Amino acid sequence: MNRFMTVAVAGAALALGVATEAMAQAKPDVLVKQRQAAMTLIGKYWGPVAGMASGKVPYNADIVARNATYLENLSQMPWDGFHESTKGEKSRTLPEAYSQKAKFDEIAERMQAEIAKLGVVARAKNEAGVKQQFGAVGKTCGACHDGFRAK
Amino acid sequence: MNRFMTVAVAGAALALGVATEAMAQAKPDVLVKQRQAAMTLIGKYWGPVAGMASGKVPYNADIVARNATYLENLSQMPWDGFHESTKGEKSRTLPEAYSQKAKFDEIAERMQAEIAKLGVVARAKNEAGVKQQFGAVGKTCGACHDGFRAK
Repeated sequence: MNRFMTVAVAGAALALGVATEAMAQAKPDVLVKQRQAAMTLIGKYWGPVAGMASGKVPYNADIVARNATYLENLSQMPWDGFHESTKGEKSRTLPEAYSQKAKFDEIAERMQAEIAKLGVVARAKNEAGVKQQFGAVGKTCGACHDGFRAK
Repeated sequence: MNRFMTVAVAGAALALGVATEAMAQAKPDVLVKQRQAAMTLIGKYWGPVAGMASGKVPYNADIVARNATYLENLSQMPWDGFHESTKGEKSRTLPEAYSQKAKFDEIAERMQAEIAKLGVVARAKNEAGVKQQFGAVGKTCGACHDGFRAK
């Protein structure tokens, strides 16, 4: 793989999402598969950060920085998958995700903002900052899972 | 979501992968699920880039830049999922992915390098550069799928 550092600029996912949607609307089952894929990977890279930030696993600032950057990108990927057309698809998503869309979107936006802040302190190798910000991210994850995902 | 642009630094995934592995080895079925999730999302964000670069879909430089950045991050995510322990798991991966690991890794590294180059021209809003680099990326995808994935 490329050994040099790459500078990746992400952002403005919401505005672009609309354009993407207008361009080609994926089938409902594909949308569900894609949004679940994003959640799977968020879990993969969040796990070690949570373990390290909570002191359960030895802290590795390089892994935290890498994972936080992945998470920042991944945090923008699930949302266009929660399209109206997926209402009837089998998943753990509760009907409220569609009927209370404004609330759902608000949490999703907050989650992205908190993860972006985590990315900043993680890349600065600011361990205390990560340990502080980690809770704020976890809260937004929980807020959505509690209200919009079947147990 | 956060309206400000975020600068995300990724890289050195291979070296860090070793450390992550030493830290916590996920179960084989989880590893397969995670690597398939990465491939699913690579497909999601590669599709529009391929469509635009090949002239089948109207070109949108903002979407290409965003997707290329996502792809740059996603291109680093599948590989630790192709662990020896997953040999017996159900998937389309051929046995050669494990028996010819050096060749497999070489293509995976080339794919990441080509996608990183795509990211550079995409973020520079260099449409001609994207249209040129897109083929090089596609070739590395094909090389791995042809040799290491069941039809």
